[in-house]
Amino acid sequence: MINRRKFIQAGTVGMAAPAALPFLGKAAVNTGEKTAKHEPLKLGMAGYTFLNFDLPASIKMMQRVNVKNLSIKDFHLPLDSSPEKIKEVLGELSAAGITAYAVGVIYMKSREEVDRAFNYAKAVGVDMIVGVPNYDLIDYTEQKVKEHNIKIAIHNHGPMDKLYPSPKEAYDRISKKDKRMGLCIDIGHTQRTGLAPAEAVVQFKDRLFDLHIKDVTAANNDGQAIDVGRGVIDFPAFERALYKINYQGMCSFEYELNMKDPLPGIAESVGYFKGVMNTI
Amino acid sequence: MINRRKFIQAGTVGMAAPAALPFLGKAAVNTGEKTAKHEPLKLGMAGYTFLNFDLPASIKMMQRVNVKNLSIKDFHLPLDSSPEKIKEVLGELSAAGITAYAVGVIYMKSREEVDRAFNYAKAVGVDMIVGVPNYDLIDYTEQKVKEHNIKIAIHNHGPMDKLYPSPKEAYDRISKKDKRMGLCIDIGHTQRTGLAPAEAVVQFKDRLFDLHIKDVTAANNDGQAIDVGRGVIDFPAFERALYKINYQGMCSFEYELNMKDPLPGIAESVGYFKGVMNTI
Repeated sequence: MINRRKFIQAGTVGMAAPAALPFLGKAAVNTGEKTAKHEPLKLGMAGYTFLNFDLPASIKMMQRVNVKNLSIKDFHLPLDSSPEKIKEVLGELSAAGITAYAVGVIYMKSREEVDRAFNYAKAVGVDMIVGVPNYDLIDYTEQKVKEHNIKIAIHNHGPMDKLYPSPKEAYDRISKKDKRMGLCIDIGHTQRTGLAPAEAVVQFKDRLFDLHIKDVTAANNDGQAIDVGRGVIDFPAFERALYKINYQGMCSFEYELNMKDPLPGIAESVGYFKGVMNTI
Repeated sequence: MINRRKFIQAGTVGMAAPAALPFLGKAAVNTGEKTAKHEPLKLGMAGYTFLNFDLPASIKMMQRVNVKNLSIKDFHLPLDSSPEKIKEVLGELSAAGITAYAVGVIYMKSREEVDRAFNYAKAVGVDMIVGVPNYDLIDYTEQKVKEHNIKIAIHNHGPMDKLYPSPKEAYDRISKKDKRMGLCIDIGHTQRTGLAPAEAVVQFKDRLFDLHIKDVTAANNDGQAIDVGRGVIDFPAFERALYKINYQGMCSFEYELNMKDPLPGIAESVGYFKGVMNTI
């Protein structure tokens, strides 16, 4: 009858010895308290999900599905925003109980674009950029990581991507660099390269900073985005792997189907992911 | 690498010996094929969910969440409908790939109302009424069950209900009657009486015909409806119990929160339920 999640939480603030439980026979009232084997994984949203919506509408959707962390995309807060604009957007998020935990995805094709991305992240006050630097900018990006103490999480984009089809192309270029250089593994694009997300997160665990969560219809280049649980990704295996590596980052939903009416699909995806999480 | 769901399905139509698998090393392509330990539970919708919507709008929502079975509620098809109206509604459902598997919930407070319910079910062509007959009509209802070969699934409605707060009050009155008399266990109202749904379905398995799926905020009379997975019901335990008893009926979502904008909550509920189902 012990609620293990409460038990764990209590443990973090000093643990009271549980009172002796009275004998509970067959007819005992079920209080509906659920046990949880793990702390919940942290859920977020990748801002790209809200491509067709302004920030207030996006916030309403996040509140509806009870997801409280956002990776800000530039259409909600342009890279050249004034301090006033940044303050305004952060204020709207904060008033809604939402934390901006990163910015991106930001593509960087020149030193100027790297500078701009890091200055932007600093001005927004986040400690991570989800980004795509060209290969020849990796060293310069590392300088900026050290200079600003801001992490870079390189995002992979599937079989047709010239730079980072799978997490491996990014990992191989940053694994011996500053430990604040890592990956945002997009599990849909990763599955499309033929690498199971459950395997990818274990393989690259030491540099895994962020995740884009989606499902895909096929494990190849033809795979299309689809509601989580309806595609080919093995979510029980994937989420078990996240617990196995003790992943502490975000699981950010990036929903790319029905983008003009995404809320039902976001909701089904969040529900499925949580259903798996609370069962494994 | 065997897809167990496909394996089971193949097994039902004659089983081919699997070809010898080539050695698959670490670098093997992951095809994204998922294993499934069970046949999926059958999902449906309780018509009451769509209280504020006409049939076309309700059908669109069912299609969006990919749920194909409906227990028709009277606001979509009145009890005194003409054969033409019945044909029209069944045609709309059929065109959308949706099966009407029952009618109800129908309250029956007189012999005339029992007659009307059975005549209605017969005219609609379903073999089950989800209903609430008064105690003194149980014997008469049994006569009608025999006469029409139509099942009755008695629906329970929580602590304050005068007739059937928990499934037990119904079960005790029908367990020795015709085997076509049984229960539609409303798991939210059942949890509110202090009986865990996982326990209820096992306890009353021999007369379990239908389920209304929802979650509740508390395991007592104050419990309010909430999206599946956000409340106190232990869905992994509940769904495990359904597999344990080899339940073959519907799991019909009855969503009673945000009833003027229910789709996101329906979607999250369906997603959560399926996430659990595909993990246990």
